Amino acid sequence: MPDYTQILQAVSWNEQGLVPAIAQDFSSGTVLMMAWMNSDALQATIESNEAVYWSRSRQRLWHKGESSGHIQKVHEIRLDCDGDTVLLKVEQVGGIACHTGRANCMFRRYTQHTEGGTCHWQITDAPLLDPNDIYAKK
Amino acid sequence: MPDYTQILQAVSWNEQGLVPAIAQDFSSGTVLMMAWMNSDALQATIESNEAVYWSRSRQRLWHKGESSGHIQKVHEIRLDCDGDTVLLKVEQVGGIACHTGRANCMFRRYTQHTEGGTCHWQITDAPLLDPNDIYAKK
Repeated sequence: MPDYTQILQAVSWNEQGLVPAIAQDFSSGTVLMMAWMNSDALQATIESNEAVYWSRSRQRLWHKGESSGHIQKVHEIRLDCDGDTVLLKVEQVGGIACHTGRANCMFRRYTQHTEGGTCHWQITDAPLLDPNDIYAKK
Repeated sequence: MPDYTQILQAVSWNEQGLVPAIAQDFSSGTVLMMAWMNSDALQATIESNEAVYWSRSRQRLWHKGESSGHIQKVHEIRLDCDGDTVLLKVEQVGGIACHTGRANCMFRRYTQHTEGGTCHWQITDAPLLDPNDIYAKK
């Protein structure tokens, strides 16, 4: 197993020891989601070639797809200029990245009706799966 | 001018009043960079159709390209399922998003030489502009 010390030290972890990680479809370029990693999550991602994040709500490692089966196979891991953002280029198994049952999480688009008129976040996509079925099916 | 109250209230600002914002090339899908916005930055982005971030290092609004000329014309603004990530689809004027003079900030790729061998962050792209020239030229 490689020594990951320098890999992990190059990352500018925030005061909670986390770094934002963007998951992008390796083929289409679609941005699927954004989540967080700690150093254990990044190392687990490297070792498994599957996306592992840090769940801030559950305060534990989150192997994406562990309950739904919708894992993300990692094709490439990138680090930005400042070391404070990770980009994963992934193959989204099952085609569903979002817990709402959608292909990706970025489904609200800023929309303004007329110049100076009302504005809202417009839902652009309907779920492909019933969220209640995502976690029941595996 | 529209009332942005509901737009801004739909965002889950963190404890510093910020939200991560991903800038993606609207045409190629390339992820250019990640920065942060406060509510003033998001409103300024909406109003100007140009990316405005919150500079954490300078603690002020940062109109991307204000000194380099490399502004980002905003084609679309997206908000994710949880409201805690913004995605901007932009046209990167000048083709340079990164302060290092590169087209984008995501130019370090995790590379492992052989199974079990050494690993490092490999630089994938050389700068297109000398960083010293970026801010002098305008």
